[in-house]
Amino acid sequence: MNEERRGFLRKSFLGALGAGLATGMGAKAMAQAGPDDPAIIEKQIWQTTLGQPVAVKPYGEPSIYEKYLQRRQSPGLTAVDAASVSFAPLQGFFGIITPNGLHFERHHQGWYDIDPNKHRLMINGMVKKELVFTMDDLMRLPSTSKFHFIECGANTGMEWGNVAVPTVQYTHGMLSCCEFTGVPLSLLLEMAGADLKKGKYVLAEGNDGSGMTRTIPMEIALDDVMVAWAMNGEMLRPENGYPLRLVVPGVQGVSWVKWLRRIEVGDKPYGTKDEAVHYIDLMPDGTHRQYTTVQEVKSVITTPSGGQQLLTTGFYNISGLAWSGRGKIQRVDVSVDGGRNWSQARLESPIMDKCLTRFNIDWVWDGKPAILQSRAVDSTGHIQPMINALREVRGTRSIYHNNAIQSWKVDTNGEVSNVQVG
Amino acid sequence: MNEERRGFLRKSFLGALGAGLATGMGAKAMAQAGPDDPAIIEKQIWQTTLGQPVAVKPYGEPSIYEKYLQRRQSPGLTAVDAASVSFAPLQGFFGIITPNGLHFERHHQGWYDIDPNKHRLMINGMVKKELVFTMDDLMRLPSTSKFHFIECGANTGMEWGNVAVPTVQYTHGMLSCCEFTGVPLSLLLEMAGADLKKGKYVLAEGNDGSGMTRTIPMEIALDDVMVAWAMNGEMLRPENGYPLRLVVPGVQGVSWVKWLRRIEVGDKPYGTKDEAVHYIDLMPDGTHRQYTTVQEVKSVITTPSGGQQLLTTGFYNISGLAWSGRGKIQRVDVSVDGGRNWSQARLESPIMDKCLTRFNIDWVWDGKPAILQSRAVDSTGHIQPMINALREVRGTRSIYHNNAIQSWKVDTNGEVSNVQVG
Repeated sequence: MNEERRGFLRKSFLGALGAGLATGMGAKAMAQAGPDDPAIIEKQIWQTTLGQPVAVKPYGEPSIYEKYLQRRQSPGLTAVDAASVSFAPLQGFFGIITPNGLHFERHHQGWYDIDPNKHRLMINGMVKKELVFTMDDLMRLPSTSKFHFIECGANTGMEWGNVAVPTVQYTHGMLSCCEFTGVPLSLLLEMAGADLKKGKYVLAEGNDGSGMTRTIPMEIALDDVMVAWAMNGEMLRPENGYPLRLVVPGVQGVSWVKWLRRIEVGDKPYGTKDEAVHYIDLMPDGTHRQYTTVQEVKSVITTPSGGQQLLTTGFYNISGLAWSGRGKIQRVDVSVDGGRNWSQARLESPIMDKCLTRFNIDWVWDGKPAILQSRAVDSTGHIQPMINALREVRGTRSIYHNNAIQSWKVDTNGEVSNVQVG
Repeated sequence: MNEERRGFLRKSFLGALGAGLATGMGAKAMAQAGPDDPAIIEKQIWQTTLGQPVAVKPYGEPSIYEKYLQRRQSPGLTAVDAASVSFAPLQGFFGIITPNGLHFERHHQGWYDIDPNKHRLMINGMVKKELVFTMDDLMRLPSTSKFHFIECGANTGMEWGNVAVPTVQYTHGMLSCCEFTGVPLSLLLEMAGADLKKGKYVLAEGNDGSGMTRTIPMEIALDDVMVAWAMNGEMLRPENGYPLRLVVPGVQGVSWVKWLRRIEVGDKPYGTKDEAVHYIDLMPDGTHRQYTTVQEVKSVITTPSGGQQLLTTGFYNISGLAWSGRGKIQRVDVSVDGGRNWSQARLESPIMDKCLTRFNIDWVWDGKPAILQSRAVDSTGHIQPMINALREVRGTRSIYHNNAIQSWKVDTNGEVSNVQVG
C-alpha cells in the first residue's frame, strides 16, 4: 500500500469513526470499555501467578477459546465419510495463509499416513529411462518454494441450483492457500528423458485405494507444476498427501494428486473416470464439457458473512479473499448496496501469481438492510461474473466451476445471510 | 527466478548429476530404487483398504512419522522452565513460513491462555484521551497483513564464547516467520490523540506476571509496528501472546510484547529492567550498549547442518535462511571450502521486507572434508560478518546480537558439526 493510499484510507476511516461516535464502534469503545474498566484496573490471575513452562507442548495447539473454529463436514452433503469433503472455516481466517490444521479435505477413499520410507515415485511412459525415486532421492534435488491457492472444482457448487447454504465455510470452504516446497516436475521429466515431441500429456496417479488419476497437458506440466513434500514450512499433512503430492498452480484441486506415486508420459488424454465422468461441466443442452481445469477469477467477503451478526451500527472492516488461476489479482471492488455502487478495496501485499490475495475496505453500517458483494479482476483482464450472467451460459445443472459474485444480505437486526442477487 | 537463471541452474544441476552417476545421488536412485522395486510393484495396504474419513481430526496434526520434529529446550540452558526458551527445529523447515505449532518460545514468567473477553488494551500517557479497547473493538478496525521474521536478541548467543552447540536448532532456533494480521499502532495513537511533538517514545506492557515492558522510539512505532491478533491465518497461539501481541518488524523479539495490555506515550526512554539490565551488549571494556534493537543482516545453512550426516557422496541441495532487520535480502553467497571461494545462491520469491528469505544452491560432495558457510547482504548494503571480525569489536562476553557467519564442517564420514572458522 503506498503512502498516498494509506493517508487516504486513514482519513476516510477517521471520518467514519467521527461519524459513528454516537452510535457505532466509537460509542462502543467509549461505553463498554474505558480507563475505569475492571478488566484493565483489577489484577487478573495471569498477572499474579506463574504461567505454563516452555515446550510443555512440543507441538503447539490453538487457544481453548478457538476450539469451535474447525473444518467441518456439511451435514447434508454425503454419508460416505471416506469419500467426502471437510470445509475450511474461512470466516475465522486472517491474511492469506491457511493453517495446516484447518486446510480443507477432499478424499476419494479416505486418507492414510503413509510411511515415507515405503513411498516411491515412478516416472514412466514415453521416457528414455524409467525412474523410481525414494523420498530421500527427491529431497536431495534442487527445490523451490512457492505460495499458491488450491480450490476444489466443486467449490461454491451448491449455488448453481440456488441452494444457498448458510455460511462462507460451506459456500467457499473448499479453498486453502499454502507455501509449497518441492521439486519442479519439469526437472524429473528431464532426468527421465521424456519425449517432448510425442509426449503431449502426463498422467498423475495417487497411492490411495481410489486409484485417483488425472491427465495434465504437457505445457502445464513443464510450466510451474511441482512435486511437493512440504506445506507452510513443514512436511505435508497426511490428509493433504503426505509424503508427496502434485501442486498444479491455478488448476482445480482434483489434479493436485495426493500420495503421488507415478507420473506417466503419454501422447493423448487418458480419459480416466475422474475426468470423463466427474469434474465435468453439465451444460444446458445436456452435453459435457471435459478438461475444464483452470479456476477462473473469483472472490468472496469472509467478514461479515453468512451466519454472523452485527451487534451495533457503525464502523466495520469488510474483509475477504480474491484469487485467479490465470495470474495475479489486479483489483477488487466492493458494493454494499447489491451492485449499484462499487468502491475499490485495498489489497494486502505481496500479490502473488495464482495465490490468494486478502482485501479490506472500510464500511459504516447505518442499520439499514445492505447487500455486500465483492468483484475481482485478474491480471489477464477477466472479471468475476454475476450469478445470472454465468447461468445464462452454463445453466443450473452443473456442480463445478462456479466463480460468480457472492452476495451477503445484512438485515436490520444485523443478521447476515446468503442471498442470490444479480 | 527468471527463465535465464532457471535454465542455467538446470544445466548446472544435470551436469552435476552426470558427474555423480557413479558415486552419488544418481547411483543411489538407480541402485536403491528401480522399476522392479517391491515398494512400487507390490500393492500396499493404503491401496487396498479404506482410509480414514474427513474431519476425523477437526484440527489436523502432523504425520506420526514427523513426531520427533519438536521445539525443544536446551538441556543445559536453564532449569526455570517458566522463564526459559524452546528452540524451533530449523533443520526440518521448508520455505519461509514457521508452522505455528513449532514457533519458538521465550517466556519470562510462563504462558497463559487468556480469555479474550477479559482482555483489554489501554492507550495512555501523553494522549488527548485515554482509550481502552476490547478485542471486538480492535478487530473492527481497518486491519493489515504482513509477513515478518521474529528473532530473539539472544539467538546464536552461545557462539560468542565459542560454545559451539551441536545443531542449528540450538544455534539459530530462536527464529520464526509468520504472516501477521492486526491494526497499525499508528492508527491507535492517532485515535487517542497522541502528542507527537513531545511524545518521542512509547512503552509497551504485557499482561503476564513478568511485567514485561519495553521502550520503542516513536519513529519506529509510527512506521510499521502492528498490534496483531493473528499469525499464519489464525488467532495467535497462547505461547505467542494470544489474544494480542505487538509486532515490531526488524526489531529483536523481546520488544514484540506478548499478551499486550498497554501502550503508554512518553517523552523519554523508560529504562525498564528488560532494557537496562537485560538485552544489552556487554562490550570488551566492560561498558553496556543499551537499546540496540535492530536485528542485523544474518543467514544460516539449515541443510546440511550440525548433527546431520551425509550418507553418500554426490549431489545435494544446500538450503538455508537469510534475513535482515534493516530491509530486504539482496544476495546470499555460499562457500563449501571455509570461505576461500563463494558462489551466489538462488533466492526464493517473494523477497519481502524484514522477512525470512529461503536460499538454495547446488553442491556435489566429493567425500572430502568441507566447510559450509553462507553470507548474506541486505538492501542497505550491510554484509554479514565473520565471527572473528565481530569479536574484534564486540569481544566475547556478550550474549546478544550475534549475526556472524555460521560454519558447518562436513567430515569424511559425512558427519556435520558446528565449528568456528574465520
